[in-house]
Amino acid sequence: MDEFALIRRHFAGLTPQGDGVVLGVGDDAAVLQPASGCELVVTSDTLVAGRHFPAETAAGDIGWKSLAVNLSDLAAMGARPRWFTLALTLPDADDAWLAAFAAGLRTLADAHGVALVGGDTTRGPLSITITALGEVPAGQVLRRDGARPGDAICVTGTLGDAALALQQGSAADATLRARLDRPAPRIDAGLSLRGLAHAALDLSDGLFGDLRHILDASRVGAVLEVDALPMSPAFRAAAAASSRRALQLTGGDDYELCVCLPADAVDRAAARLDVPLTRVGRITAEPQLCLVDAAGHTITPSFTAYRHFP
Amino acid sequence: MDEFALIRRHFAGLTPQGDGVVLGVGDDAAVLQPASGCELVVTSDTLVAGRHFPAETAAGDIGWKSLAVNLSDLAAMGARPRWFTLALTLPDADDAWLAAFAAGLRTLADAHGVALVGGDTTRGPLSITITALGEVPAGQVLRRDGARPGDAICVTGTLGDAALALQQGSAADATLRARLDRPAPRIDAGLSLRGLAHAALDLSDGLFGDLRHILDASRVGAVLEVDALPMSPAFRAAAAASSRRALQLTGGDDYELCVCLPADAVDRAAARLDVPLTRVGRITAEPQLCLVDAAGHTITPSFTAYRHFP
Repeated sequence: MDEFALIRRHFAGLTPQGDGVVLGVGDDAAVLQPASGCELVVTSDTLVAGRHFPAETAAGDIGWKSLAVNLSDLAAMGARPRWFTLALTLPDADDAWLAAFAAGLRTLADAHGVALVGGDTTRGPLSITITALGEVPAGQVLRRDGARPGDAICVTGTLGDAALALQQGSAADATLRARLDRPAPRIDAGLSLRGLAHAALDLSDGLFGDLRHILDASRVGAVLEVDALPMSPAFRAAAAASSRRALQLTGGDDYELCVCLPADAVDRAAARLDVPLTRVGRITAEPQLCLVDAAGHTITPSFTAYRHFP
Repeated sequence: MDEFALIRRHFAGLTPQGDGVVLGVGDDAAVLQPASGCELVVTSDTLVAGRHFPAETAAGDIGWKSLAVNLSDLAAMGARPRWFTLALTLPDADDAWLAAFAAGLRTLADAHGVALVGGDTTRGPLSITITALGEVPAGQVLRRDGARPGDAICVTGTLGDAALALQQGSAADATLRARLDRPAPRIDAGLSLRGLAHAALDLSDGLFGDLRHILDASRVGAVLEVDALPMSPAFRAAAAASSRRALQLTGGDDYELCVCLPADAVDRAAARLDVPLTRVGRITAEPQLCLVDAAGHTITPSFTAYRHFP
């Protein structure tokens, strides 16, 4: 089967016509009809085998996660996802692998009503780049640069689960494993936080490093209460007490949202969301990031933020 | 230098604010303002080292070509390019390589007024995926499925130059080499062909294979006059007579446009374009692709179209 037949066969069902798709897979490019009055939100993320996922990861999980990390970026902007392109580089055209990959991708795409509209298939070391496109009413996007002193810092869901699963490998509990392999992009939370949050981003490299992007962009600082970081029951049961902080702050792969909003809006925001929202700190005028424990003592971290090119 | 500083340093100049860029590189995603009354045209193409370009290719040429192949797709749709994202996978963060890569990319981006608005940098085997976004007034896009019996088949520029350069390697003439390393996407030609062409695509895998996509989509056939294929002086001088047809028909990497249009519109179209337009065949109702020579004799090809996954 040639490349074109291969793409058609496995990915055809991912491109419903209609819903803004004038022309999907099969021409030189896709043609889309953006909604009037909306801004277009665009993000591209790459997953490389052996770096972003273990080489033995199931194809379906790779398909899911490739899209999930991109939808998570759209969630952090408060955007509604609409379309995506898939650039898939494969060592060979393995039919079973492709079927499973496409099924994982489709499950998440269908859950959020997002259509595959184009892409490229090339031969080479396994790597996936997805570009996701979403929309948000003009002026309502959630940015990184709007945090203000006094804002509460909150996170959705729980932190550290994926990092613990990665550390434990095949010994990891299934709940933790699912958090690593099939993260749920917080799309609905992002939509609900429009008009309430001053700043937002998604947590991919760990709160300790990612929060700095909000602080830098907003020219503010923060006090982070490390004992307030939300833990799942599975994490609490399986993580050694001595490694919890590092896993939760720098483990990465959480794909939760970190948002800054007025302290008196936290309860209102929490009531709107379909996931728990936990207050984990506050924004300060002094431009530094301080960690404090439950007793209020300052902590000097023994870890560093994840760096892609150390 | 960490990943973020590295991206900022080399690619910052590629993101002019304004021109539809509400928020460029630096947040979770880019925010763009599409033009009203336009459809959005989106394409993603990947270049893998050792497959789409020789490993020793100059970084500046890789930067140029990564964008060029995507802009060529937009050209084939009659779209005006506006923005792009860059997903760059690198074995290491080599400062000189990145500077040269960014400079090559910038030269082409500036020539077409297209802004880098986001992307991802990851560590891994060298590979570049660019997603380019363009716009076209609603309903005016050039598609593959509109060719009609009697249409003239035309190509822009000349064919076979890049394939010959690849074949000759370091012995290739500089003119041919430039056609391989720095192809010029036919953006202006694509814009000028709106309203005239019934069908169009860009030639990346060779006319013999690529034309079939128009024929399949339009449910028509074609007679292709292989002795009419346009040759550059450098190609004519350097290509052995026995290999010319294969290079021109299946060599690939031409990045010229192939368009189908009414026979009586060819002169009008040619007069509008900034590159030569050559008539190389005609569309037929009978759904097959026939090759004929200058004497009108049918030719049985001794070559096959390029396949990504043979």
